[in-house]
Amino acid sequence: MADIARLVRDIADEIAAIPERGDVATYIPPLATIDPGHFGLCIVTVDGAVHAAGDTDEPFSIQSVSKVFALTQALGKIGDTLWRRVGREPSGTPFNSIVQLEREQGIPRNPFINAGALVVADVNLSGHEPRVAIGELLRFVRYLADDDTIAIDEKVARAEQATGFRNVALANYMKAFGNLTHPPELTLGVYFHQCAIAMSCRQLAMAGRYLMHGGLYEPGGARVVSPQRARRINALMLTCGHYDASGDFAFRVGLPGKSGVGGGILAIAPGQASIAVWSPGLNENGNSKLGTLALEKIAEVTGWSVFDR
Amino acid sequence: MADIARLVRDIADEIAAIPERGDVATYIPPLATIDPGHFGLCIVTVDGAVHAAGDTDEPFSIQSVSKVFALTQALGKIGDTLWRRVGREPSGTPFNSIVQLEREQGIPRNPFINAGALVVADVNLSGHEPRVAIGELLRFVRYLADDDTIAIDEKVARAEQATGFRNVALANYMKAFGNLTHPPELTLGVYFHQCAIAMSCRQLAMAGRYLMHGGLYEPGGARVVSPQRARRINALMLTCGHYDASGDFAFRVGLPGKSGVGGGILAIAPGQASIAVWSPGLNENGNSKLGTLALEKIAEVTGWSVFDR
Amino acid sequence: MADIARLVRDIADEIAAIPERGDVATYIPPLATIDPGHFGLCIVTVDGAVHAAGDTDEPFSIQSVSKVFALTQALGKIGDTLWRRVGREPSGTPFNSIVQLEREQGIPRNPFINAGALVVADVNLSGHEPRVAIGELLRFVRYLADDDTIAIDEKVARAEQATGFRNVALANYMKAFGNLTHPPELTLGVYFHQCAIAMSCRQLAMAGRYLMHGGLYEPGGARVVSPQRARRINALMLTCGHYDASGDFAFRVGLPGKSGVGGGILAIAPGQASIAVWSPGLNENGNSKLGTLALEKIAEVTGWSVFDR
Amino acid sequence: MADIARLVRDIADEIAAIPERGDVATYIPPLATIDPGHFGLCIVTVDGAVHAAGDTDEPFSIQSVSKVFALTQALGKIGDTLWRRVGREPSGTPFNSIVQLEREQGIPRNPFINAGALVVADVNLSGHEPRVAIGELLRFVRYLADDDTIAIDEKVARAEQATGFRNVALANYMKAFGNLTHPPELTLGVYFHQCAIAMSCRQLAMAGRYLMHGGLYEPGGARVVSPQRARRINALMLTCGHYDASGDFAFRVGLPGKSGVGGGILAIAPGQASIAVWSPGLNENGNSKLGTLALEKIAEVTGWSVFDR
Repeated sequence: MADIARLVRDIADEIAAIPERGDVATYIPPLATIDPGHFGLCIVTVDGAVHAAGDTDEPFSIQSVSKVFALTQALGKIGDTLWRRVGREPSGTPFNSIVQLEREQGIPRNPFINAGALVVADVNLSGHEPRVAIGELLRFVRYLADDDTIAIDEKVARAEQATGFRNVALANYMKAFGNLTHPPELTLGVYFHQCAIAMSCRQLAMAGRYLMHGGLYEPGGARVVSPQRARRINALMLTCGHYDASGDFAFRVGLPGKSGVGGGILAIAPGQASIAVWSPGLNENGNSKLGTLALEKIAEVTGWSVFDR
Repeated sequence: MADIARLVRDIADEIAAIPERGDVATYIPPLATIDPGHFGLCIVTVDGAVHAAGDTDEPFSIQSVSKVFALTQALGKIGDTLWRRVGREPSGTPFNSIVQLEREQGIPRNPFINAGALVVADVNLSGHEPRVAIGELLRFVRYLADDDTIAIDEKVARAEQATGFRNVALANYMKAFGNLTHPPELTLGVYFHQCAIAMSCRQLAMAGRYLMHGGLYEPGGARVVSPQRARRINALMLTCGHYDASGDFAFRVGLPGKSGVGGGILAIAPGQASIAVWSPGLNENGNSKLGTLALEKIAEVTGWSVFDR
Repeated sequence: MADIARLVRDIADEIAAIPERGDVATYIPPLATIDPGHFGLCIVTVDGAVHAAGDTDEPFSIQSVSKVFALTQALGKIGDTLWRRVGREPSGTPFNSIVQLEREQGIPRNPFINAGALVVADVNLSGHEPRVAIGELLRFVRYLADDDTIAIDEKVARAEQATGFRNVALANYMKAFGNLTHPPELTLGVYFHQCAIAMSCRQLAMAGRYLMHGGLYEPGGARVVSPQRARRINALMLTCGHYDASGDFAFRVGLPGKSGVGGGILAIAPGQASIAVWSPGLNENGNSKLGTLALEKIAEVTGWSVFDR
Repeated sequence: MADIARLVRDIADEIAAIPERGDVATYIPPLATIDPGHFGLCIVTVDGAVHAAGDTDEPFSIQSVSKVFALTQALGKIGDTLWRRVGREPSGTPFNSIVQLEREQGIPRNPFINAGALVVADVNLSGHEPRVAIGELLRFVRYLADDDTIAIDEKVARAEQATGFRNVALANYMKAFGNLTHPPELTLGVYFHQCAIAMSCRQLAMAGRYLMHGGLYEPGGARVVSPQRARRINALMLTCGHYDASGDFAFRVGLPGKSGVGGGILAIAPGQASIAVWSPGLNENGNSKLGTLALEKIAEVTGWSVFDR
């Protein structure tokens, strides 16, 4: 797959030259000071080959990309009963909207908006201490990426905790509707730490392999989730993975993907590739501006869009 | 592809035996009197083979499925400038909601909710008499299906016109925001007739072939739309084709699809098949109850889900 | 009551000198061309004395002020059963909002937002031709004002009809919920003509007397409505008469009042005065900017606020 | 004023006989166990006479009635700059709605919905310890009622704190918009204690006298607030004092009033009377069912409605 190696290099070069890089997230200091000039790209193809370019080994805050792994973990714990507490529909509203919760009695629209991710964190907490649940998720991500160096950025976690009033509001609001089982501050503790996981593009692309391989760790390897579950997580990533720009991402890129405000995106081409891209500048919807562009180009050149014949 | 032939027969038999068939749409008399016992299925595979079972040649009111063809026609007329007047995001609200329009200044969320389809009809009208625009769309659909017997059910069109107060409201509301160029009653005339097109499953599956063939009429045949446009229409069908149950359809079926309240669904497996199914009983979201079930089974057996590796 | 005479003159002088007069309504040409320099004021006190200053005899388009008279007429026809079709609560949204209607199944919040006034017009139509209902309302207003020269400005009525897409939307939307009994275009015909009634400040203040006199035409005169109904109409004017600025009007002025986009306001000091003011420039909420200011000063000086001891 | 004495007795007798008393609030245990058979009424007339009947000396949890005194206190601290942080319009939504806050960027509609009262509590906190601010408010209420026995029910305060997830959500949500200056938990501490003030009808009617006397403690007495401020607080009580049933209360009763979920209502007839009523059963809007009825009868008999001539 020499073409992919070249494609990865070409795109990294092309993106490096673009002056307009979007704005980095400013809501917490550790993110606000990231240099928007960073760009990392890593593609793991179905044959196991790893193609990387740019700042591919520099860890960044994966933020909401963690929701994919946390969802996988929660489905492993309680299976489809999760869907009694969270929906599977695009929200039509921004990631941190509380309006929809009032109309729908505390049931978040999907597991990728913040409210839904808090329910998922509440499931993963399952009566343990927050640090136990966080440790379990971290071990799961390390296993998926086959890399034990992955860690939580405590500075980011503390900053989230200090300024996350809106998430505190969401958690307490759902608690009022009975849709959190633990004290909100414990569930929030899990959530804030989960968002603070730091990973490089290489680690992230490796961790996403099970979604390319129909639920297997690698071809012929251990089963992480059933094929149906892998498909369904991919479906959720496509319809809900980019908040109220999910439709546009499907329209332009055509791949299941999950973005984070740290500027990372994990995208899956089922049966083809697991792709991680990082560019810290965001567009007006809070998704990585140049990361989205890179994925659009990759899909165009490779024909990996799920809507391609 | 003997398996497909058998699959089609098996599913038709299985569905026929299900007693709980959902409720037929009752808002206009011609739809309210349809026997919910009907079931039709037709799959055209990429090799051109046609597999049909059940009431596959009985015409039904395609209703909102027509929005796919009208969108294709409008994009042919004005290209991507269409997207200045209509969005590409799932709405998060029912098909006939007016709330979103107020918040977003008369710009409908996507071309498959009623408001968006009215903008599309307004584009297709393009200064002509309504009957000219309707004739043009009808000829386009006949061409796609290679069947000149496809016609508009005038009784349905008149009934829509007599009771479509909510659509009249949507059209006038957008007119107030300047997002209709024609008098609302003319645009509505086009829309009501478009919804009243009657097609059989066989005709509908044939008409959808260009979306399976990356925009070609048939392999090696004439180009209907560019590959990119075919992909993008498929993306819109996946994210927005089933109103506020689009996420669930993607989750369960995993195919681009567009439903109508007449009980028909057109689903596309890019590069694999164009599928039409008809069962008049609807579920609580207004989509065909058993049609959705049939498609879920087809996707499960064939592995045609776009999220399958 | 020499003080009132002087107050009226002083205020007219003071207002005339204010350069910032707000913006006249521009949605229909006959309103857009009104000179914002106009100012009229008329106070009829409980003793029958009439104090006027400025352009007090120049007719202007009363627009939504007509909703007070139409409501009185509808309550006369069907009494409190009206409240099954329209609420009595402030809406918290602009005068022409459609959002609330969707949430509350076609029941408008109150009779002074456009949707509510359309229900009132539908009641007043009561099976007759629109011109009969309009004639009846016009005769009622002439009787109240004791002035047979009051007329409808047909140019305004036609302009409303030609551009009132949002009102057409509201009417059809309620029709879809079954909350209009007549064809929407007939109800709209009544509504558009009602809004086009032209009255001077003198005529308007005279017409409002029954609300100052506890329902009597004049002290010792004929009964127009019961004391309870007069009180209740005043209550509705206070809580809902200025759309989503009703709270502010109550806070600053403290009188039941009803504004119109033509720049007129009718305000009632129960047991004290009926006041009409006209200044065509509007504030950001669509209420007369200097008219509101004049009423604030009048209430301050006279102590007529209903919240004054 | 023998009539008032008799009226108070008659109404107490009449209400005692009504079997359908509404449902007591159940969200915290100390309220859920109150006997719905209680009824208390106290009217202090402008001449200083106190007329009481029923359980007029039994303290109950005044809950949201406290918002009137807290607002008065906050206006004393920062004057009209308060209105930069909270609106003066009826909300059109339930007392604990969070939807409006999202649309309006963290600015509550008025100081009587929970969100607005939290801003008021934040103003009253003004850099002190919560217990200092609570002590100050308690002293103010004791002064107004001329009764040093008024106290906070600590059991109620603790129960509010333990279950007030929705208020925690509101506070954190506004903090996210920068509309709280203190840590949310401190502001909430003030708010929960303020709601837990226990007062009898007699104490409450006494405490409301300054709003009947145009801002004076008693006729000829000390000034609590300016006449304008008294008027304006009354205006806010009329337009916003009963949440989304404020319009109906104005329509039926016609007096400025503030209700609490403990079943108490304070109503003011400016220049005539300060009225406190208590009946723990609530109607569907969360206001005292029989308390509202009693006030409707009082207004009818006395002609104290502000809309009466």
